Amino acid sequence: MKYTAVVRIWPREGVLDPAGLAVCESLRRLGFAAAEVRLGKALRLTLDAEDEARARAAVAEACRRLLANPVLEAWEIDELVSLARSG
Amino acid sequence: MKYTAVVRIWPREGVLDPAGLAVCESLRRLGFAAAEVRLGKALRLTLDAEDEARARAAVAEACRRLLANPVLEAWEIDELVSLARSG
Repeated sequence: MKYTAVVRIWPREGVLDPAGLAVCESLRRLGFAAAEVRLGKALRLTLDAEDEARARAAVAEACRRLLANPVLEAWEIDELVSLARSG
Repeated sequence: MKYTAVVRIWPREGVLDPAGLAVCESLRRLGFAAAEVRLGKALRLTLDAEDEARARAAVAEACRRLLANPVLEAWEIDELVSLARSG
């Protein structure tokens, strides 16, 4: 079955995030009351798996092995839905 | 009051996403059954606003004016929570 997962990858707490700081500064210059911005990545993965548990395990392994740098980044699975065909 | 919003910004449907394709190809080489990967951005914004409706409006305006390229990217507000102090 096909599953779609959304993964978010963030710079860890305490890790400098210069891109986020630049966005925050730009927002302030435009008049927004921005206090802090952290800039991460979002990935939408579509993958084949037998069931939801295996899909979740595969996504977690992909984060650990490829998608996130564990020293600098934390990842989280934000959504996981099956693309089962209806009808 | 302070609010924290998470915004996701995606390449629009039909827009070529070479970074997502490269990630998909790497996942396949590692043995994952990845069918498609789209690579976007995730931003966590902390901002001051009087209430939740104004916070949401400010985040949407920030997406339109600065954060997303409307030709190539679609944005969505994924979370919006107030950081009210308890106690």
